[in-house]
Amino acid sequence: MKKIVECVPNFSEGKDADKVEKIADAFRGREGVKLLDYQRDANHNRSVITVIGEPGPLKEAVITAVGAAVALIDMRVHRGQHPRMGAVDVIPFIPLRNTTMEEAVELSRDVAQAIYEAHRLPVFLYEASTADPARKNLADIRKGQFEGMPEKLTLPEWKPDFGERTIHPTAGVVAVGARMPLVAFNINIGTDNIEIARAIAGRVRHIGGGLRYCKAIGIALKERGITQVSMNMTDYTRTPLYQAFELVKTEAKRYGVNVVGSEIIGLVPLGAIADTAAYYMGIEDFTTEKILEARIME
Amino acid sequence: MKKIVECVPNFSEGKDADKVEKIADAFRGREGVKLLDYQRDANHNRSVITVIGEPGPLKEAVITAVGAAVALIDMRVHRGQHPRMGAVDVIPFIPLRNTTMEEAVELSRDVAQAIYEAHRLPVFLYEASTADPARKNLADIRKGQFEGMPEKLTLPEWKPDFGERTIHPTAGVVAVGARMPLVAFNINIGTDNIEIARAIAGRVRHIGGGLRYCKAIGIALKERGITQVSMNMTDYTRTPLYQAFELVKTEAKRYGVNVVGSEIIGLVPLGAIADTAAYYMGIEDFTTEKILEARIME
Repeated sequence: MKKIVECVPNFSEGKDADKVEKIADAFRGREGVKLLDYQRDANHNRSVITVIGEPGPLKEAVITAVGAAVALIDMRVHRGQHPRMGAVDVIPFIPLRNTTMEEAVELSRDVAQAIYEAHRLPVFLYEASTADPARKNLADIRKGQFEGMPEKLTLPEWKPDFGERTIHPTAGVVAVGARMPLVAFNINIGTDNIEIARAIAGRVRHIGGGLRYCKAIGIALKERGITQVSMNMTDYTRTPLYQAFELVKTEAKRYGVNVVGSEIIGLVPLGAIADTAAYYMGIEDFTTEKILEARIME
Repeated sequence: MKKIVECVPNFSEGKDADKVEKIADAFRGREGVKLLDYQRDANHNRSVITVIGEPGPLKEAVITAVGAAVALIDMRVHRGQHPRMGAVDVIPFIPLRNTTMEEAVELSRDVAQAIYEAHRLPVFLYEASTADPARKNLADIRKGQFEGMPEKLTLPEWKPDFGERTIHPTAGVVAVGARMPLVAFNINIGTDNIEIARAIAGRVRHIGGGLRYCKAIGIALKERGITQVSMNMTDYTRTPLYQAFELVKTEAKRYGVNVVGSEIIGLVPLGAIADTAAYYMGIEDFTTEKILEARIME
């Protein structure tokens, strides 16, 4: 069977639909590459594309997409709720089928080198693709954001893995790496007070003493007059989504506010959804093996 | 693309694993037929097999399985919690891919005729395969169970669709028909008082004034010392599983008892599980399109 790798690049454009279409075009009409999903968020001013493919064709498509983003996005005028450091903020590769993490790491390094050579965009390797503990976590690399990067790159410990100690003038820098599947799970809070959303995020996430495989920040959804705990669930098999959801509800009570909904950004693995249904209805011995479509697929 | 039909025959043997294996063998090693699942329940003394296939090969496999069941199961000594009227209690066909309900009805009628001709088992057509409103509902056909069938068949309105007005001496009668996908969903109640489970079932099900697409009975799980509301959700797109689950919890409160778990018998469509997760976590705009595996499958 074919090797299949997933790639979920994040682009710093969420308002201009035409630009996002042009970037997504890089993944269309290519043998061995399949565009699964793309989601544009005007409030975050960010788009997330989900694509799967065989390593070789996927690499070529990603390099083309990065070229489009570098040409179309000017970070000097970018404003959005979500932290970001470049026109292409992050490019994660996830081993999906018949692929080891080592192969995904190798692919990520090939892509990183090619991106620098083709587009002069400095690259940090992150997650499984780096041995440096200070670079494992995307948030550590991104700290200071686009505006702080020129100075950050001059620090001894922040030389990019590919490229020089100067940012691309309009596209900033990018992080590329291989990682396990991640679920982008946002929980909406019925208050416009961002301090409350930030406080909840701070107590639910791992670094705040909360859930082991949960990263979280508080953001404002200004057009809806509410706020959001925006989370990355980095291992849903060990920290299930329902734990994060219930813990956010629990913390929201401290402030007399309510959870008013949630959203999944990009795609979610079937296992995470099956687990959620099994938890809330107490379904005994429930696995994805009990789902008709999953059995047909085998 | 190929036509794929699902078949979920129910056999009145849930204790003897060897016999169930022999029946399941009818679905193994056949071109165009795939055995997806089989579940044996000693308490119900019943097994449910889930199989998919192309209409022609599926028909042959079902006829063979019925032959095995007629040879192996003697209804005169059958005892179990679940109501039943024959060695093969019911054979539903569900149009799955590139198949219309009309085609599934035609297949069910072909199979019904062949079963009578091959095994002398009288057949009632039910659900979409009959025009008679008194025979749409399996429970109406099954009323009286195996023991009451000899007399029931002599009534003017209960002549079988295939076969004479006498039961097969050891295998009883069988219902065959085409229907929409159904979810067999059982909710466990933390009491050994079957009257409570029956009362809850009576208030949750459609005929008792409850949910439109929900059939329910109360049964005892003697070996666990608890009871169960055993449900057939006949259209999960219109009566979602979580409504049944929450309503059973609500009714259980009247009796000071608790829901202690649930189970899915056979396989469940992905849509029903996605809907459950979306409800409990309030996920906005969530459909199966957001599930990675579903997108890969397309």
